[in-house]
Formats: sequence, C-alpha cells, structure tokens
Amino acid sequence: MNADSPRKTLSVDLGERSYPIHIGPGLLDDGSLLRPHLAGRQVMIVTNETVAPLYLESLKRGLIGGAESDLDVRELILPDGEHTKTLASVERIWDALLAAGFNRRCTLIALGGGVIGDMTGYAAACYQRGVAFIQVPTTLLSQVDSSVGGKTGVNHPRGKNMIGAFWQPRAVLIDTATLKSLPARELTAGLAEVIKYGLIRDLDFLAWLEANMAALRELDDALLIDAILRSCTIKARVVVEDETEQGVRALLNLGHTFGHAIEAHQGYGNWLHGEAVGTGMAMAASLSRRLGWLDDDEVTRVTTLLEAAGLPLAAPSEMDAEAFIERMRLDKKNLDSRLRLVLLRTLGDACVHDDTPPTLLDEFLRDYPRT
Amino acid sequence: MNADSPRKTLSVDLGERSYPIHIGPGLLDDGSLLRPHLAGRQVMIVTNETVAPLYLESLKRGLIGGAESDLDVRELILPDGEHTKTLASVERIWDALLAAGFNRRCTLIALGGGVIGDMTGYAAACYQRGVAFIQVPTTLLSQVDSSVGGKTGVNHPRGKNMIGAFWQPRAVLIDTATLKSLPARELTAGLAEVIKYGLIRDLDFLAWLEANMAALRELDDALLIDAILRSCTIKARVVVEDETEQGVRALLNLGHTFGHAIEAHQGYGNWLHGEAVGTGMAMAASLSRRLGWLDDDEVTRVTTLLEAAGLPLAAPSEMDAEAFIERMRLDKKNLDSRLRLVLLRTLGDACVHDDTPPTLLDEFLRDYPRT
Repeated sequence: MNADSPRKTLSVDLGERSYPIHIGPGLLDDGSLLRPHLAGRQVMIVTNETVAPLYLESLKRGLIGGAESDLDVRELILPDGEHTKTLASVERIWDALLAAGFNRRCTLIALGGGVIGDMTGYAAACYQRGVAFIQVPTTLLSQVDSSVGGKTGVNHPRGKNMIGAFWQPRAVLIDTATLKSLPARELTAGLAEVIKYGLIRDLDFLAWLEANMAALRELDDALLIDAILRSCTIKARVVVEDETEQGVRALLNLGHTFGHAIEAHQGYGNWLHGEAVGTGMAMAASLSRRLGWLDDDEVTRVTTLLEAAGLPLAAPSEMDAEAFIERMRLDKKNLDSRLRLVLLRTLGDACVHDDTPPTLLDEFLRDYPRT
Repeated sequence: MNADSPRKTLSVDLGERSYPIHIGPGLLDDGSLLRPHLAGRQVMIVTNETVAPLYLESLKRGLIGGAESDLDVRELILPDGEHTKTLASVERIWDALLAAGFNRRCTLIALGGGVIGDMTGYAAACYQRGVAFIQVPTTLLSQVDSSVGGKTGVNHPRGKNMIGAFWQPRAVLIDTATLKSLPARELTAGLAEVIKYGLIRDLDFLAWLEANMAALRELDDALLIDAILRSCTIKARVVVEDETEQGVRALLNLGHTFGHAIEAHQGYGNWLHGEAVGTGMAMAASLSRRLGWLDDDEVTRVTTLLEAAGLPLAAPSEMDAEAFIERMRLDKKNLDSRLRLVLLRTLGDACVHDDTPPTLLDEFLRDYPRT
C-alpha cells in the first residue's frame, strides 16, 4: 500500500446496513480495508477466468496478510460472460460453500465485473437465508453501478435479472488500477452509466464530464476517482431515498428500457449493456425532444457527450418499431402492462413517464436512426 | 361465510411489513380477507396435488367473488412431499410466473403445508427481487410454525433449508376446518411445535395443553383456535424481537438440533419433521436433567405431554452417538463449528447452551433410549 496514493471513501447510509465504498488506485491488496468487514473466519472469493489471473493472488495476499492468519480463504473461479449469469452458476457457488462446510458467519467476496457481483451477491443473499458479502468490482460499469445499491440476481431465458434479491454489501472496494487492464470497449460501456448520473440528477457533473471526457478515457487517476465518487454518490443518494425501487430509484433506469430491448433482441453480450444503455439514453433524449421537453441544442449536448465517450447512437437496423414495443412490454418495469419510460424533463432532471401516446411512440421508433 | 363462526385475528408487528393472521373455521372462501392484500391484478395460487382437489376451488371462488372480477388468477399444482422442496420446484414457479407475463405487482398465494409455503415464499422473495405473497397454511404444523416469521427456502442435498430468504407474507389465513382432512399422524406432528411454545416461553400454556390435549386431538374448534392463536402469538413475539435470528429466535429451535439429525439420518419424510422435533424435545429435556436444570418430575411432565399428543420419545435404533454428533456438526445453527443446543433452564424457559462438555454429551447420547 502506498500511503501517498489518492483515496476517497463514501459512506452509503442505510441505517444498520450502512457500508463504506473505498475508491483509489492499488486498494486491492490492502487487507486492512477488507478485514474489518468479514463476518467470521470463513471467506470465499468468487471470481472468473479473466479476472483471476490478474487480481486473485493480490487480493488473497492482502486478505491473509504477512503473518499467520486464522482465516479459511477459499476461491471459486467461474467462466466469464453475461451468458453465465444464470441460476446454475449461483448453484455452483452454493455447492462450493456447502462442500467447504461454510456456516452462516461466512463472507463472500465478489472479485470481477457486474456479472460476478450480481451472482455472488445473490448467492450471499440466499445462502442459509443471508450471509455477508463484499464487492471488489473490476470494471468501470460495476464500479459505478452494480456495486452500489444492493441489487443482486441472475437472468432467466425469458428476461434479464428476473430472479434476484435486494442485498447490501458490507463494503465495496474500488481499485481504479484495475481499469488499466479493462478493454477500451468496456471502459466506454461503463462511461454510459457515468453520463447517466449527470443526465438524471446533476447538471454540473454533466458539464464536468463534457470538459474531462478525453482525459477520463486516458485513465487519469485523479479524474477517474472523482468521476466514480460522484457517480456512486448520486446513486447512493437515490438508493437511500428508495432502497427497494418503489419511486425515485426508477430514474436510474434512464436509457434502460430501450437498452434492455436492444440487448435482449440482439442477444446478450453482442451489445454490451453500457452500449445499449448509451443508445437507449440517446433515444430517451430524442423522445423527450418530441414531447417538447428538450430543445435541439440540449439533445445535441447529450449525443455529443455520448459520442465523445465512444458510445453508439443508432439503434440496430435489425430492430423495427414492433420489435422494440414487444421487448419493452416484457420489461419488468412495466407495471400492470403499462409502458413506463424514464425521460428527461430537462438536462439534469429525469422523470418517469407512463402515458406516452402509443402513436407518438410508434412514430418515434419508426423514425429513430438505425445502424 | 358464517358470521357466527368464531374467528380471531393477530397482528404481527414488523413496522412497514406488519401483517394480520386470521384464524377460524371456514375462512378459506372468504375473499374479503384476501383481496385487501393483493398487490395488483395478477394472482398465482401455488398448491400441491393433495391439497388442490380439497381446497383450490373454494379459495379461487372466494377470491374472484360472485360478480365479474378483473383479477387474473392462475394456479400451479406441484407434486406433494418434503422431497419436492428443491430449487427445481421453485424454478417451476418462476417459469410459470414468467410464462404468464406476471410483473412486480403480482401476488403469490401459498395453499398447502410447510413445503408449499416455504417454496412459494422463496419464489416470491426472489421473483423480480421480491413480490407480494400470502400464506394459506392447511396443516397444523405450517399454521403454527412456518406461516409466521418469514423464513422461506428449499433444501439442498447437503442439508435442510440451506437456500432461502427472510420474506414476510402480506397476510396469513388459517382455516381450522382444513385440519379435518389432515391425517392424524400429521396433526400429531403439528402438536410438537405447539408444545414447544409452552416449553420455551409459557408455563401457563403448557398447563393448558396438559388439560386439553385430548380435546385438541378431537379437533374441538374453539380449542384449536386458542392453541393456534397462542402459538402464533408466542412465535410472533419472538420474531418481532429478533427478525433475522441473531438471538432469542434461536430458542424456537428447541428440539430441532436433535430433530434435524434424526430427519437427515433417517431420510426426510420417513420421520415427519414434527415427530423428529418431538423426540428432539424429549432429548433436550433429558439432557437438561443431566445438567441439573430440570428435575425428574419436570422431565416426566414433558414426556407425558408429548406422549399424550401421540409423539415418539425414543431415538431411532439405527442412530448411535457418533451418528448424532456428525449430523449435528453439519447443522447450520452451529456457528464456527461450535455445537449450540437449545435446552430448558426450567419448564417455560429455554436457553441457548454452547458449552456442553463433549464427554457428557457423548455419554448422554449413548444412554438415551432407542426404538
């Protein structure tokens, strides 16, 4: 651990279930950040084949420390990819925990991106009706999104994240140095969620992103820490207001209804989640323009920033308006068959809109640019 | 609905998640008790092949009512038995919900015994990260035990209830008339849990049970309502004090550590859960005697009452002391490999004991009567 390295800590305030998010380069092997949050001696690190060779040993070394340790640290290395985010993978985690004889005071550590985090969190939520878990997210997307807020779960052949639970981590450790090993396309996908926070709640942050996007893509450490901290702060504030997504938390789904439709139609993994959300946000901005909420200049600010991040704007040419409508109707955010969209009332202020006239929506979907 | 029929209602006070327990004969087809607790139009009744022919139509009739209804009521009939309490059965529930296009405002109704209740509750806990559910327990065991307290889950080949969640119902409807169709052996098994409440917290109730056991076994309606109400009241009080089983809730496991060992060793279903708990309580009383906490007369009161309920006292002859020790070490209540037993400090006052000397325990297990 380098004492001079910049570090920041954010506290997510959820009463008894409050937890810290530590952000900075080179945190991964600093066991002093992890050890206070272990529930007992038994620890299982869940990771995947891509991340394990890069970071598993550092994490273990930090956790166990130099001297002899009484921790019983196990590891489970799963395959990589969105297609592995299934109940069958979670069953592998449960089987490993039971085979190791782990009890209710064990701790699961998720080392990887959103897929590993969501599955490990869900495994922790339901193992013996709930055990401790810690998130160590290694992608920008999971650092600013899935590691904050307690949403865990897996996909079902009929839809994304259909099975899951709300389960809060004991701590989140965001090591920005892990982003150096992240493919550029995945960094860009993560930036979609960062931009989202500016669009829904924070016009200043949006302006800051416009000024700093190029340097962020160059992985400037101080800027990365600031962007992640601000993203997590906005998300944490929304989550605290509405832990189980009855109201304001729905705003975090800006771009996600269109985005999920694209992901599902194109097959998960062909479009990255962040890429689909990027296009979804461009679509939400465009629809907000049709409703008279944004003007042309504001829409241009949105699309310019998305492009600067490297995100796609056009919808897939394979998807016609009917394909969008059909996929969106299946989306779980659509309560009682009513289509709910998160749109922009103005930049920095999103709202839930559930009475877009069907003809207007249909026309919009037909007109929207395709690849 | 017969307005003259005796009915009682208990409120389980869990803040925002508080819910009523209605108890009485013939409640099943009284839709007015159910309808206020539905989250939306979509309702799925989950039941099994034994219960469906007896009560499914009444429940549906009550729910839908005489006039036209806008409810979308579906049903899923699963096989019966403890061996069906698996993740695969819960997946069938999730598949049915998704095939029906059910959203986050759907409601699951569990119609059946503890297995149906535990699985349906778990399915509700994790469907789209949590939807509403209502318990309609049709066995005495589930009426006084699993329908109160929010424990849901399934078994794993390596142990009972290893996968699950804490998830509270919106309401519990206990129709005592369903006990008329319950096999005598299952009624007796349910009485084990009723006796447990007296032993752990309520000496008056214990005396009341001694006076009324014969009439209870004859299914006297007023006595059944009182016994169920008192059992649920004690359990609800314990659950409110300790919702996620960090402390006092452990007392509800009186007889369960020995009992689970018997069930697991004999194969689930060969001994009913309540039967194993009955023997487990006799064992706990006997061990409490060895520790000098109970005297001979008190142990006799326990065994006499268990016998009056029709419960077995002797442990299976196939299980030697080592078999007990081995099974108990796997029990999830044994944190960090320390054996924790719920014992009786005196009648009506249970405690958790985690330092029974191994030699004393071993000697006790060798001496305890076998079938």
